[in-house]
Amino acid sequence: MSTLYQDLSALLPDGQVSVAEQDLEVHSIDKWHASAPPQVVVFARSTEDVEKVMKYANEHEVPVYTRGAGVGYVGGCVPVQGGIALSVAKMDEILEINTGDGVAVVQPGVITGHVQAAAREKGWYYPPDPASLKECSIGGNIATNAGGPRCLKYGVTKQYILGVTVVTATGEVLKLGGRCHKNKTGFDLTTLMCGSEGMLGVVTEAILRIIPHPETRGMLGASFVDFSAAAAAVQAILDSGVLPSALEITDAFTLAAARDYLGEDALPPGDAYLMVEIDGKVDSVQKELASLQAFLKELGALRINEAPDEAACEEIWQLRRDFSYSLKHTGLTKLNEDVVVPRSKLVDLVNYARKLQEDTGIDVACFGHAGDGNIHTNLMVKDYSDPETKEKADNALDLLFNWVLDHGGAITGEHGVGLAKKRWIGKALGGPVMDAHCAIKAALDPKGILNPGKFLD
Amino acid sequence: MSTLYQDLSALLPDGQVSVAEQDLEVHSIDKWHASAPPQVVVFARSTEDVEKVMKYANEHEVPVYTRGAGVGYVGGCVPVQGGIALSVAKMDEILEINTGDGVAVVQPGVITGHVQAAAREKGWYYPPDPASLKECSIGGNIATNAGGPRCLKYGVTKQYILGVTVVTATGEVLKLGGRCHKNKTGFDLTTLMCGSEGMLGVVTEAILRIIPHPETRGMLGASFVDFSAAAAAVQAILDSGVLPSALEITDAFTLAAARDYLGEDALPPGDAYLMVEIDGKVDSVQKELASLQAFLKELGALRINEAPDEAACEEIWQLRRDFSYSLKHTGLTKLNEDVVVPRSKLVDLVNYARKLQEDTGIDVACFGHAGDGNIHTNLMVKDYSDPETKEKADNALDLLFNWVLDHGGAITGEHGVGLAKKRWIGKALGGPVMDAHCAIKAALDPKGILNPGKFLD
Repeated sequence: MSTLYQDLSALLPDGQVSVAEQDLEVHSIDKWHASAPPQVVVFARSTEDVEKVMKYANEHEVPVYTRGAGVGYVGGCVPVQGGIALSVAKMDEILEINTGDGVAVVQPGVITGHVQAAAREKGWYYPPDPASLKECSIGGNIATNAGGPRCLKYGVTKQYILGVTVVTATGEVLKLGGRCHKNKTGFDLTTLMCGSEGMLGVVTEAILRIIPHPETRGMLGASFVDFSAAAAAVQAILDSGVLPSALEITDAFTLAAARDYLGEDALPPGDAYLMVEIDGKVDSVQKELASLQAFLKELGALRINEAPDEAACEEIWQLRRDFSYSLKHTGLTKLNEDVVVPRSKLVDLVNYARKLQEDTGIDVACFGHAGDGNIHTNLMVKDYSDPETKEKADNALDLLFNWVLDHGGAITGEHGVGLAKKRWIGKALGGPVMDAHCAIKAALDPKGILNPGKFLD
Repeated sequence: MSTLYQDLSALLPDGQVSVAEQDLEVHSIDKWHASAPPQVVVFARSTEDVEKVMKYANEHEVPVYTRGAGVGYVGGCVPVQGGIALSVAKMDEILEINTGDGVAVVQPGVITGHVQAAAREKGWYYPPDPASLKECSIGGNIATNAGGPRCLKYGVTKQYILGVTVVTATGEVLKLGGRCHKNKTGFDLTTLMCGSEGMLGVVTEAILRIIPHPETRGMLGASFVDFSAAAAAVQAILDSGVLPSALEITDAFTLAAARDYLGEDALPPGDAYLMVEIDGKVDSVQKELASLQAFLKELGALRINEAPDEAACEEIWQLRRDFSYSLKHTGLTKLNEDVVVPRSKLVDLVNYARKLQEDTGIDVACFGHAGDGNIHTNLMVKDYSDPETKEKADNALDLLFNWVLDHGGAITGEHGVGLAKKRWIGKALGGPVMDAHCAIKAALDPKGILNPGKFLD
């Protein structure tokens, strides 16, 4: 037994520190391709637990890797320098759903979908909806400033975090923000914690903003002759004064995979597919859906499926999920890159994806959040653990990310940097901005113990 | 002529540095009650100008007070330690309104209302709407993270800042964020700059998010027997699944002043007034307005005015503005405090305001943004420059702010801390959070030259 294990065991209640092989293994990875075991796993149960761990770790300069549900896509919580895997997964209580104040108070290990469901039961709404919402947790959502389809209308995670309790690297407990919906008290450190990927503090409680739940939703699924036509429809819808609650686009490669998986008849003709969701009062949604349908026809839609209520919407969303399954069904590994481009460059991005496919021989499937330019660009490779395949894929990724940066885009819209995008963060930020990051990091974590080995190192 | 004037004149083009009495005077104040002259005024015209000024100021440890339109309410830009008043008011160009990307690129001196108008011309919308939007500038809005009535539905300034160019205290130029609508590249330093009150950097350009402009608006103005009834209606509207674009409440004191100013008949009977604005497609707004009207009747509204379109809405908004004029018409000075409480405490706040009035003999008028608990609590005093009156008023403010903090509220929702709320910031933040502020400030501004003498000192 290591000293680290013994020391932490002495600090914390029984059963909260583990060096069991299985625990170390589980806490070595997330959903990305990197793996590195921690020396110990700590299962925190309270802010006080985290405070003790951080004070100890800071004194002894032990790396600390905070972890929620462990379903990140970029290796963000992988303990690349060993030390402590600090799991907040067992801090999973919804402490309060308060519609009078319009807040949900939750622990970081709460599954995002559970918060949505609990708010919904009272007629209220927590909008951020990452695709993984049934398994990801609020703590991880805060760490990566998670997004999702409905963020087009409703905004990403940071727009719903009114306050957080954070334990700093030195073990100070900071109560940032609060339960007020507007708050200009000092700097916005609450938002600074959003998207800081476990490098500036450990979130142990969060006060989330919830809003009235729209009465209903309706949706249209429309196919177009090609991606350009669908992208033009995206802009035309927005120009018409409609801000849909979701606006998702799918390219020809993905549709071909879906036809292969679901059967030719399961999908309408055309090489692009657009999903438009609107929400609001029942009467309004009905009426607006009808006029939107007429508008899409004008814009050249080949076939349109209408989903007039929430149950019907689910079918179209299921199709969206089936696109993912279809890609998996190809037997290839999907390197899912959540790049973003300025919206006017949607077509350029997809054209570049085609060129990349031709140049590298690696299939590229594009689909995602058209309204905000956040298109998941999936490189489909045979076996990423095979060195030769990996090198070829990494070269293709270099080409893709450089193209994105050269066209005013962002290397990540909602997954975070982690290890997966460490290679491009220098170019993405530039020297002076990287220096500012390092200065802030050093100010809050002088010994660099929180999530070391990631994008600042 | 001072060395400072000579040095800066040598660095910058002719006519951009002034020690003219009138310039010093204008740059000594904002809309609050503090006054202190700078040694020189610099009128920046470009990022390069600001870079030169900051490099010089950092080398020579000269305080720099950035200033936009100078219409802040808290003395935020008042140069309390002399030095340089750095005006960006002449950097007032709208560089781009790009609906394809959904962005407006602007210089910091642009008047907020001009951005709204320019976006509107193309059918797009920049929602943040501080009451001063015809005279305040984007730079100041960013410095204070400005709000306004429509922030209930649409969010405050920070939710519309996609990127900023910032010159740091040491003269580094940081390009933060960009024109993508989602961006998880590194820490969210763009938002950190929002609300940093000129203490972390000088914003020289901003990329704003714009959204499709709703087709129309409609509004109801409803009077209630008392404030409790109106506050109950606020919660009932939200509980019914409606998120209005604005939801404003007015108390009995303000209504009495308005009756005095506008005439008894200009206002419906009742001791509270509620304004509800919704927006969307024409048909939807019509229909929802009708059902909202029926709902307000059920909730006990005494009389309801309906404004079915934008032009009619203007009349109700004019009434809202007239409430302010009515208070001015009393001949008293309005100490406008933009406190916030958790929404469930709206009635408690207004009851406390009544008690405060009884206890101190100072009239208190409450009105503001009911939906987010941001109620402007106005202490009406005879002459704030009279020491005796000032002491009495300051004691009353102490009572108010302590009550707000003791009830989970925030000392400022949208005006900022500046000098006006410096007295309560320590209690509001608490020691560890204040320490974190100071650490970040020192990291980005090691010599403490940006806006010294404000809430961190």
